[in-house]
Amino acid sequence: MIYSLPRRLTAEALGTALLVATVVGSGIMADSLTDDVALALLGNTLPTGAILVVLISILGPISGAHFNPAVTLAFAIRREAPVSDALAYILAQIAGGLAGSIVAHAMFDLDLIQISQTARTGGPQWIAEIVATFGLVGTILAGVRFRADAVPWLVGLYITAAYWFTASTSFANPAVAIGRAISDTFAGIRPDDVPGFILAQIIGSVLAVLLFGWLLRPDTDPQDS
Amino acid sequence: MIYSLPRRLTAEALGTALLVATVVGSGIMADSLTDDVALALLGNTLPTGAILVVLISILGPISGAHFNPAVTLAFAIRREAPVSDALAYILAQIAGGLAGSIVAHAMFDLDLIQISQTARTGGPQWIAEIVATFGLVGTILAGVRFRADAVPWLVGLYITAAYWFTASTSFANPAVAIGRAISDTFAGIRPDDVPGFILAQIIGSVLAVLLFGWLLRPDTDPQDS
Amino acid sequence: MIYSLPRRLTAEALGTALLVATVVGSGIMADSLTDDVALALLGNTLPTGAILVVLISILGPISGAHFNPAVTLAFAIRREAPVSDALAYILAQIAGGLAGSIVAHAMFDLDLIQISQTARTGGPQWIAEIVATFGLVGTILAGVRFRADAVPWLVGLYITAAYWFTASTSFANPAVAIGRAISDTFAGIRPDDVPGFILAQIIGSVLAVLLFGWLLRPDTDPQDS
Amino acid sequence: MIYSLPRRLTAEALGTALLVATVVGSGIMADSLTDDVALALLGNTLPTGAILVVLISILGPISGAHFNPAVTLAFAIRREAPVSDALAYILAQIAGGLAGSIVAHAMFDLDLIQISQTARTGGPQWIAEIVATFGLVGTILAGVRFRADAVPWLVGLYITAAYWFTASTSFANPAVAIGRAISDTFAGIRPDDVPGFILAQIIGSVLAVLLFGWLLRPDTDPQDS
Repeated sequence: MIYSLPRRLTAEALGTALLVATVVGSGIMADSLTDDVALALLGNTLPTGAILVVLISILGPISGAHFNPAVTLAFAIRREAPVSDALAYILAQIAGGLAGSIVAHAMFDLDLIQISQTARTGGPQWIAEIVATFGLVGTILAGVRFRADAVPWLVGLYITAAYWFTASTSFANPAVAIGRAISDTFAGIRPDDVPGFILAQIIGSVLAVLLFGWLLRPDTDPQDS
Repeated sequence: MIYSLPRRLTAEALGTALLVATVVGSGIMADSLTDDVALALLGNTLPTGAILVVLISILGPISGAHFNPAVTLAFAIRREAPVSDALAYILAQIAGGLAGSIVAHAMFDLDLIQISQTARTGGPQWIAEIVATFGLVGTILAGVRFRADAVPWLVGLYITAAYWFTASTSFANPAVAIGRAISDTFAGIRPDDVPGFILAQIIGSVLAVLLFGWLLRPDTDPQDS
Repeated sequence: MIYSLPRRLTAEALGTALLVATVVGSGIMADSLTDDVALALLGNTLPTGAILVVLISILGPISGAHFNPAVTLAFAIRREAPVSDALAYILAQIAGGLAGSIVAHAMFDLDLIQISQTARTGGPQWIAEIVATFGLVGTILAGVRFRADAVPWLVGLYITAAYWFTASTSFANPAVAIGRAISDTFAGIRPDDVPGFILAQIIGSVLAVLLFGWLLRPDTDPQDS
Repeated sequence: MIYSLPRRLTAEALGTALLVATVVGSGIMADSLTDDVALALLGNTLPTGAILVVLISILGPISGAHFNPAVTLAFAIRREAPVSDALAYILAQIAGGLAGSIVAHAMFDLDLIQISQTARTGGPQWIAEIVATFGLVGTILAGVRFRADAVPWLVGLYITAAYWFTASTSFANPAVAIGRAISDTFAGIRPDDVPGFILAQIIGSVLAVLLFGWLLRPDTDPQDS
């Protein structure tokens, strides 16, 4: 690593904070400007996809730009990140996620810390989070392997799609879920529903490590598998 | 080929499944959030274009990322894919297409297998599918020739456009058409109408192979044609 | 030139036809799905921007991908295209523009040739077309000079912006204007109003050649101008 | 510098003019076509993001493509631009910003110079401008350091996001704020409110120089910070 742990943790916290500020802030903005929920979701989706491209491009060279405990977990399982670093990353991400909601609330003149009332629970939602996180982690693992320069774009575009094709609007990120729990706005999630989402995200991440771990392994003899 | 057939077929099935899950899932999401059909189509278009860039980037190095029997057909006609591989690819794509609809239904808590009631038939629709597939296959053939690294983007952008400029919203893909036949939602197509679409897609693919085969051939003497 | 004139003219005609089919077809689609004109314009803008990236990427290596007499004119003034080729290009572009409208009408089951009733005339509209074409030609001249690989993107993004920031929705292209004159749909223009638009487009092109010709010339001595 | 100061100042003025013409013009267009404010903001956002990618790509090699006194200030603080050049840049940017509004008004047949009545003031708005400018300048500083070729995209995408996640719709640019003050349209800002915005923008720029200055400094010994 070229960058020391304090700089890397700052990058993880800052990146996650700006990501959550974007998710929550754009949700507040969109929701206040229209009664059409599809349009509000579009006003939430495009900024999130766009800021992901930016944040991964500018902070990736410092910390790897995980911004997501489910991603850090995948790298730790693959032994591409030491466990102690992974734990520090996850704490920095959660702190950043909470800070992001607070900053969004400050900009929109709302109570800085709130309790979301938005229910997001049940089997279909959990399936959606498993699929969403599986796809995100698979995108990152295969992207890093084949098109490292394009990873910021691939993640931004994946989340742009996943906002719409998963029933949960694709949280796919425990730190973001925790950050959104303290925002009773468009992007919020009831604190009681966070553990179910996090469990589904962990399952999705592990499934992606398993399937893509096999899929990405080149064959020496093309007749083998 | 660096990757063995099982890995390549898995990549084709997985990619087609995620593509159809995105088409069907985002259609369900968009349709449920708005009464404005143009907005619903936008909420269907952007995720589809975005996921195509992702899927072709991350799975292309494994299988070529056809995800589409009309594309596999074009490469087989050009003898760039062996016939036996082509048939296996097409079966994997169809299986993936069906699985994609089922996954989308599971996430949105709907019956896993449905019969679409949406009529999509008649001359103008078939002309639209011929044009849509001609353009898609032409984009891929010329893209592979001139800008191989950009093909994921070119396909994603082409489909983004074709959703709107073709009267059929550009299926342009037999495996996706079959997958959408088992979804009675925004993106569905009546099973009876699938054969007409597939025939039109085959015609479009063959026309593209013929025209672009001629167009892309460089001239040794610029006065010739 | 690696490619002979027949292939280059085919590329110009095909590219202009697909461009106009996209402009006209997406206008018909969008207009039929919503009563909100801003949304219809968005459904017209995004496909046009997207298809431009595709068409310039896949046909640029063959013909240069002008698809636009105002662009061909700029290259002719700069003596980067022989006059005889330029005239042939312009005829191919106009033929393609007309064909594009006809194809769009066929897909949407409309009369193949129509007379647009949409008035687009007057000083502010002409100023808008001068600005639109000035910006387009400037983008191309500077793009070719500094970022040749990015030109497809720059043109697609420029037109995406110009649809909205110019009062005329940025035709910026005589062949497209002629093609749109035979479509009495969302994207149409009254035939009587076409000459005014073409004149404004020529003025914009010439102004761009003059200003960017000066601006792009590197200085040997940085104190000079 | 390869380009002399007159060419560089022309590039700064031209780029800022086209940027403000896009912001103001697309705001007028969008506002006139829909009653849905979220949709109008979308019709304002996408052109602005798109034109930024274009303008920075085509004018960056000439002048650096600041188009923004807050960006010029950041480079001056870092001693990457001489103070005399910086002052000339800022004057050119302000002149361009004013010209951009006038051009937009001319295209839309409005009074060329107007006094905006749109109030944009108060603590949350100023916090939003500090955040918006902090993020913009940080994006540029880190982008130039790690992905210089991608800076046009990063800035365009950052502003696309910031339109929605900041309560002020992210002016983040004193020259643009001044230009928008003479437009009593969708994108306007009351002249009285401009100084507060500019002060917030300066604070955001300085904060970004400080934090990113520290963050981007590679460590020789990874245990240090």
